[in-house]
Amino acid sequence: MTAFKYFKEDWTPVIDDYLAKHLASEVDNQKISQIMAYSVMAGGKRLRPLLFLATLNTLGRKIDEPEIRIACGIELIHTYSLIHDDLPAMDNDDYRRGKLTSHKKWGEAEAILAGDALLPLGIQWIAEGSQSAQLVNIITQAVGPNGMVGGQYLDIDSTNNASVAGDAKFINQMEWLKTGCLIQASVEMAAVYAKASDIEQVKLIDFAKAFGRSYQIYDDLVDVVETSEKAGKATHKDKEEGKNNTLTLLGIDQSRKELKDLIDQAKDNLHGLNGEVLAGFLDLYQKVL
Amino acid sequence: MTAFKYFKEDWTPVIDDYLAKHLASEVDNQKISQIMAYSVMAGGKRLRPLLFLATLNTLGRKIDEPEIRIACGIELIHTYSLIHDDLPAMDNDDYRRGKLTSHKKWGEAEAILAGDALLPLGIQWIAEGSQSAQLVNIITQAVGPNGMVGGQYLDIDSTNNASVAGDAKFINQMEWLKTGCLIQASVEMAAVYAKASDIEQVKLIDFAKAFGRSYQIYDDLVDVVETSEKAGKATHKDKEEGKNNTLTLLGIDQSRKELKDLIDQAKDNLHGLNGEVLAGFLDLYQKVL
Repeated sequence: MTAFKYFKEDWTPVIDDYLAKHLASEVDNQKISQIMAYSVMAGGKRLRPLLFLATLNTLGRKIDEPEIRIACGIELIHTYSLIHDDLPAMDNDDYRRGKLTSHKKWGEAEAILAGDALLPLGIQWIAEGSQSAQLVNIITQAVGPNGMVGGQYLDIDSTNNASVAGDAKFINQMEWLKTGCLIQASVEMAAVYAKASDIEQVKLIDFAKAFGRSYQIYDDLVDVVETSEKAGKATHKDKEEGKNNTLTLLGIDQSRKELKDLIDQAKDNLHGLNGEVLAGFLDLYQKVL
Repeated sequence: MTAFKYFKEDWTPVIDDYLAKHLASEVDNQKISQIMAYSVMAGGKRLRPLLFLATLNTLGRKIDEPEIRIACGIELIHTYSLIHDDLPAMDNDDYRRGKLTSHKKWGEAEAILAGDALLPLGIQWIAEGSQSAQLVNIITQAVGPNGMVGGQYLDIDSTNNASVAGDAKFINQMEWLKTGCLIQASVEMAAVYAKASDIEQVKLIDFAKAFGRSYQIYDDLVDVVETSEKAGKATHKDKEEGKNNTLTLLGIDQSRKELKDLIDQAKDNLHGLNGEVLAGFLDLYQKVL
């Protein structure tokens, strides 16, 4: 088993337990708590919290409850973004990870509010650790109008807009904002938290940039390479709905090539760091290559 | 003119200018910036930022650009809550302050995202000042599942639920969470920011609790006392829609009496503080008494 797999098998249950326990104990209203937990505990890969923890590991920082809390705060924020993206007014998805989406299960107002509750709770968990001001600055920028929400806006604004279909610069920017920003923030917060040296910070952020970009291409490829059943959500949906992404821009073969180039780049960026666990995240892509 | 009116006339244009200028300069995408600014610049009274600044004034703290930025961060967050409350799945309001609501003007996805953008941007502005960790803790708790969003959830969950119509405890809690929490946070953040003594903090928080509670009663009373035109939004709407609030619980006369009692309480809480400006906020209620 690779160092990454050991790491993942060690920490995924710790993350899952922490999320389940603290959503139950820290949210006063049992119904809201249940609606929030339904989506948070829906079987996500915990990619972003694991990235945060793996970056701490790379920097030789011990992982304890305060670090788990920050990692889980990132997952709460990621889950909020999924719930809102699935809403009828947005991507209008009925299923995610093989389960009904929040608004299909609980109602639309409930889903909007579950997202609205997860975002500040996630920021609160992140803000309670050391380096609070810097971490809050990184996370709020990553998910705000110049980050994730900005990307989602470009997405809805450009859906069925033929004029951006061939615009690689626009598509790159949209995908970076939608997905890359929060991935980079997960690594960057760990670098700041563990007080990485300047040279370590540069390497880690470059790694995060390549990984974040590659992850969106991977996510688009999964959509066509896997069947709907395996991916746990409606696949082949982007093209039907007039979505523009790297895949619709480049096609499958060229997307795979770009993904391979980004994997090489990301590995290069880890040179000179104790980056065995972080490099293992790139193995995730094997199934679409 | 009262000290409060001077204070309000001094600082309201400063708040308005700061909001307009920084939404334009700090949000990269011009369209999102415009959608966010449409609601932020829709003629709100700036009650919460003025409360933050007036509390600083009470504590003898100088007001400069860093303090204005925090005050405006609170207003961004308040505006996010209004945009989401007005959505079709929530209160389904077409007008607010005499203008089309965000989703009527720009579309539903755009309104959801404008709210989703204003919340982290507001927290970012608040987090950039001194006492960052404490202020972020106060604001995220105030607007999270145990605060404002929790109140909004109780509201939608209890609409047309006859069993809570006479439940004073439930209605008090719902109204406190929906409105009181963010008002209290505005005062509490100023107290922490200006390093108020323990005794000053207790007095200010008690004032904020009485003021926050009274403000919701006032807001419900405006709904029936003023005409739709004057209030700038649909009035008499709560009763028609099966909403439960202090007014539907107590009726107009008893609500007015409770409001008067709270005004007296709030004034008492300011005893021994340089609270002339803060006390002036209570004059706002004259028009419904």
